Amino acid sequence: MIKLTTLEWVPPFARGLVRDLRVRWALEEAGIPYEVELVRHEDRDTPERRAGQPFGQVPVFEEDGLVLFESGAILLHIGERSEILLPREKKARARVISWVFAALNSVEPCVSRLSDIDLFHANKEWARLARPGAERMVETRLRELAEWLADRSYLEDRFTVGDLLMSTVLRNLRHTDLVERQPRLVDWMARCEDRPAFQKALADQLALYESVPTQGAG
Amino acid sequence: MIKLTTLEWVPPFARGLVRDLRVRWALEEAGIPYEVELVRHEDRDTPERRAGQPFGQVPVFEEDGLVLFESGAILLHIGERSEILLPREKKARARVISWVFAALNSVEPCVSRLSDIDLFHANKEWARLARPGAERMVETRLRELAEWLADRSYLEDRFTVGDLLMSTVLRNLRHTDLVERQPRLVDWMARCEDRPAFQKALADQLALYESVPTQGAG
Repeated sequence: MIKLTTLEWVPPFARGLVRDLRVRWALEEAGIPYEVELVRHEDRDTPERRAGQPFGQVPVFEEDGLVLFESGAILLHIGERSEILLPREKKARARVISWVFAALNSVEPCVSRLSDIDLFHANKEWARLARPGAERMVETRLRELAEWLADRSYLEDRFTVGDLLMSTVLRNLRHTDLVERQPRLVDWMARCEDRPAFQKALADQLALYESVPTQGAG
Repeated sequence: MIKLTTLEWVPPFARGLVRDLRVRWALEEAGIPYEVELVRHEDRDTPERRAGQPFGQVPVFEEDGLVLFESGAILLHIGERSEILLPREKKARARVISWVFAALNSVEPCVSRLSDIDLFHANKEWARLARPGAERMVETRLRELAEWLADRSYLEDRFTVGDLLMSTVLRNLRHTDLVERQPRLVDWMARCEDRPAFQKALADQLALYESVPTQGAG
């Protein structure tokens, strides 16, 4: 059985954003059962955990002695078992993998930078001064993405793990109206998030925090 | 024949860092010939180019009608043809792919943030205030990476595309002494960069700028 390790508790602003959501969604699309192991924030950093996750992050994916980290790598691994996520045809597959990396290396860094400013450093002088530039960078990427989508329904010709990853990256802008300013992105995200597998994954992540309401809350 | 598109000219501080270096290195390791197409910075953004690279970046990889973007995706694609880069065995392969994503999503964003501050915004007030935090984040990641390496020669049990990518990410810190403060990283980078394929790739990238000394220089 696949074991997915994630945080037992996160503050409300992070609920529905923790990266185990990506893995849950992919596993739901692929119809693969899994179990969840919960770890407390302060326990992420033991030597045992570092042996599996060198950077002390979540999620961690384990199966038959194989330990994987990085949501992108985990998703490509799950994609090997699900043509819904990753086409078998070689060229189509390579294109989808381009989008997986685009989500994580060309879009997420600037999204994370803006959400880091807004959620963790809003009162600091450097953050106030840096925010306009950080927002412009996100706006540029979103405009480029919207231009790419144009009349497409998905990033390539159908839903794939590229859409899954890119849409979860854009969820990290939910405290802003930046996505809403791009109607094509709104429509595309709705198509992605309307999928039953996403709804199940999101409900399962959110249910977690209801089942452990007090631990870690301090 | 594979066509690799990259920038015709970049300023001296970027020479030896442009991401086509990663692709050149992988192609040299794999022993696959390729040709280079040069594009001027101001020509990256035509509708034709955007059809292949939605974010107007380099490198772009083309072969038999397949257009790939994102250095990580291009490297995994080349890895399919070279066991030097990517093990065939399923579990070993999945581990290497974790390192590819770690390089691009857990390490490169903080490295890029620091080099962006130093190379493009050093005189701005926000950059002066934000730099200590940005440097601490890089230091943390480098320490974690050095702790992982410990007595290992490579990130996994031999050189792979994971080392290739991670070491090229760390090259972007060459204007600082942050890597030098971690002797294990220095040794590991030397092992990677001593490889003839890297030396050839670097020499080929640098030769580019000597052959077009004036164009774009304004």
